[in-house]
Amino acid sequence: MPLSPYQQLEQEFRRLHAFRGAASILRWDAAVMMPRGSSELRGEQLAALETESHALVTSPRISRLLDRADANSQGLEDWQLANLREMRRERDHAIATPQSLVSRLAKATARAEIKWIEARQKSDFSLFAPHLEEVVSLLRDKAALLGKALNLDPYDALADEFSPGLRSAEINTIFTTLGRRLPGLIHEAIELQAKKPPLEIAGRFSASKQRQLSLEIMKALGFPFDKGRLDESEHPFTGGVPGDIRITTRFNPTEPLTGLMGILHESGHAMYDVGLPEAWRGQPVGRDRGMAMQESQSLLLEMVICRNRPFLRYLKPLLEKAFGVSGPEWDVENLYRLLIRVRRSLIRVDADEVTYPVHIMLRYELENDILNGELKVKDLPEAWNSGMQDRLGVRPTNDAEGCLQDVHWAVGSFGYFPSYAIGAVIAGQLYEALRNDRPELDEEIAAGHFAGMFEWLRQNVHSLGASLSTPELIQNATGKPLSASAWLRYVEGKYLEE
Amino acid sequence: MPLSPYQQLEQEFRRLHAFRGAASILRWDAAVMMPRGSSELRGEQLAALETESHALVTSPRISRLLDRADANSQGLEDWQLANLREMRRERDHAIATPQSLVSRLAKATARAEIKWIEARQKSDFSLFAPHLEEVVSLLRDKAALLGKALNLDPYDALADEFSPGLRSAEINTIFTTLGRRLPGLIHEAIELQAKKPPLEIAGRFSASKQRQLSLEIMKALGFPFDKGRLDESEHPFTGGVPGDIRITTRFNPTEPLTGLMGILHESGHAMYDVGLPEAWRGQPVGRDRGMAMQESQSLLLEMVICRNRPFLRYLKPLLEKAFGVSGPEWDVENLYRLLIRVRRSLIRVDADEVTYPVHIMLRYELENDILNGELKVKDLPEAWNSGMQDRLGVRPTNDAEGCLQDVHWAVGSFGYFPSYAIGAVIAGQLYEALRNDRPELDEEIAAGHFAGMFEWLRQNVHSLGASLSTPELIQNATGKPLSASAWLRYVEGKYLEE
Repeated sequence: MPLSPYQQLEQEFRRLHAFRGAASILRWDAAVMMPRGSSELRGEQLAALETESHALVTSPRISRLLDRADANSQGLEDWQLANLREMRRERDHAIATPQSLVSRLAKATARAEIKWIEARQKSDFSLFAPHLEEVVSLLRDKAALLGKALNLDPYDALADEFSPGLRSAEINTIFTTLGRRLPGLIHEAIELQAKKPPLEIAGRFSASKQRQLSLEIMKALGFPFDKGRLDESEHPFTGGVPGDIRITTRFNPTEPLTGLMGILHESGHAMYDVGLPEAWRGQPVGRDRGMAMQESQSLLLEMVICRNRPFLRYLKPLLEKAFGVSGPEWDVENLYRLLIRVRRSLIRVDADEVTYPVHIMLRYELENDILNGELKVKDLPEAWNSGMQDRLGVRPTNDAEGCLQDVHWAVGSFGYFPSYAIGAVIAGQLYEALRNDRPELDEEIAAGHFAGMFEWLRQNVHSLGASLSTPELIQNATGKPLSASAWLRYVEGKYLEE
Repeated sequence: MPLSPYQQLEQEFRRLHAFRGAASILRWDAAVMMPRGSSELRGEQLAALETESHALVTSPRISRLLDRADANSQGLEDWQLANLREMRRERDHAIATPQSLVSRLAKATARAEIKWIEARQKSDFSLFAPHLEEVVSLLRDKAALLGKALNLDPYDALADEFSPGLRSAEINTIFTTLGRRLPGLIHEAIELQAKKPPLEIAGRFSASKQRQLSLEIMKALGFPFDKGRLDESEHPFTGGVPGDIRITTRFNPTEPLTGLMGILHESGHAMYDVGLPEAWRGQPVGRDRGMAMQESQSLLLEMVICRNRPFLRYLKPLLEKAFGVSGPEWDVENLYRLLIRVRRSLIRVDADEVTYPVHIMLRYELENDILNGELKVKDLPEAWNSGMQDRLGVRPTNDAEGCLQDVHWAVGSFGYFPSYAIGAVIAGQLYEALRNDRPELDEEIAAGHFAGMFEWLRQNVHSLGASLSTPELIQNATGKPLSASAWLRYVEGKYLEE
């Protein structure tokens, strides 16, 4: 019996999944294993895979099959209908941008990234500015085309690539709420914390011992070491593909907790990938639901669960055993204060849970203004620096600690930043629902039992893959529409505690 | 100006090269880094890349372009004409086997390899036999089709995939010569060596120290660590791609020289890849000239150059420094005797230089007989065991140390084995020419200066890529047709020394 149009589509998208998985391992290799001098060669391999993937999704054959499958969709199961929708979504995104623009963007961002590295090292925005101009100009074209094809505002069209279904309307509402509440909250939290400053941890903690401890904790979390690895790289990330997940971190011998917190963050991503439905693997519907959901999983584990007392009760004896340490600075209460310190700082990736959204909201405003032309690229450093002053009360003294600190714009990822803060907000909302459903959560975590929590996440988030849009997924998991209120309740409880 | 047909072909084959390079890194990852449970997933990724590569080479577009480029070849440079010939060679090989047979073979060999692992563990050929039958039956079809397309005997058609231009006629002549001389030579060598048995090395030599020493020697050889890596894996191999070369070895803490010798072997392969012409990279003419030439480079370095006194004079102080050792067992003469011991043994990969071709000649005879139906698969164990008895005077007591020891037949690599022994013979012939041209060779090696030797190899072998056939390349480098005589002179001088 010949394959139905839908079955043929499944076959084609499985091939696409294989190409993307191959590319993902090659990117991991480039960051973790590859010799420095091989990057150009690797670039050619990745470009060949990306071109092939793009050609596959945009081929006339896929469009024909989609139309025929849509016309013959009776008899398909719900997940297959969702899969068909996701297939079409991928095609619509891919086909809206002509190949010539895709390839001009690829070249412009490759150049811009190299210049960004140099500009950041020299802390000189002017080296980067013309390249960013070029990227922005091409991105405006892309956003317009994509917006027209998807019937979305240009910015939303770009953001939809990162967090499907998330729109500026929702982002604005949430950011307005946060913008109203956070300045006061940050002020109060810092005042309160100043009354009980934690004892600092001193000493040297070898990378191998940190690694040993981290592996033990990852095992307790349920990280599948037969289908994943932990390695070290300059910037921590989660790579690979469900079924072969590669997380990385970076160990600093004077900071015994930083590398571990990085691993917990990446493990949150990894466990999302682990929990994706096996039966849908290789299909668009079997993928994660984008960056905001991904970030909700990493932040839920790192920030909400692990930077918290129950987890630290579990961690304390492990730290003492791993490093042979003891003393008041290793007490649960002191570790807790160390790990939840609020600071007005300049660098996003080092920011704490409460100030973090402020960093994001600034970027969101600036990238919107740049994209719609209200802000000129050349005026970005000043807009950034005064934005930081206004919002957080600190002002960068150079571009490296200002608008050159993140790679996102250089590589053309406009519309990505909100995912980080929305991810935090989603984490707060999921946490509230999780606690309601599992009153025993704190005791479980303190005992090092994470299975119940992950089971809840699997059931309510992971196992749904990409079958719902980002807002639908949150509504479905928590019974409420996405809003900032649960997260605000959570941070208020945590940071305004007397 | 539009691209010429030839230029379009270059573009397409560059894409093919990128796919193959990606696959090569993914295979390296599978052997060195990948978690055990991810092999099925990796299999899908590699299959997708191979299918894509096969589709590319066999596409009607490539055939059309080849015809048009051939018809318009005036104005092409010599290397471009050679490239065109190699492109056609690749297409002819790929197109002769229909996709259905390719995919049946892929599945049969995948099953056979798994069964081979099990059968070898249990030392039970009967578990493997039906799977080998299936592979052989499909291979017969392939060999017939390929032979017809290439106007070659079926066996030669298969062998041509591994060592282009190498034919049974030449292999038979060489193996007849070796078969006549080797039994006596082995007997004499063992008798002579028995008179002066070497002192054994005892102790433990940590993997990290062995690794340190190996890296130092690889640096001296000129291995480009900015475009390559050394790692550990169960079976040593050279992977990756020119520009990103990955060699592996295995360190045994009680054998300080075994891992190093493995590295020297793989470094021979690696330096061949390093020496391939940069200007032709990504094109068929820029590849190495197949397995026999590859093996000539690894054996020349490991067996001929490094298992020899000048190299050991260089190595001795490095060993003493690396392991903090001294004593008569570390003298050059004793190390030499340890490293050139001749033994009648059962396992090919552990065999010494002199008995090694005997292992190969048996496999060559058996795989010919199996392919042409003179030997039934079920009779293979007995044919193997009595062949070993007749040729080498040792008889396996079970299949694991007999006909189950090598993976080649399971994965369908009939016609591969001769490359190993012919590679040794080529190494002998190259060595004679190299010594003639560089009388100072021994002094250079003893001083740890390898640049002169590699420069000679680059000029006479590496830089020619695949622009000549295997026999032409040897004639060109040594001024003589391929024959066993130089290698026999070399082993006689080395092993019959009083």
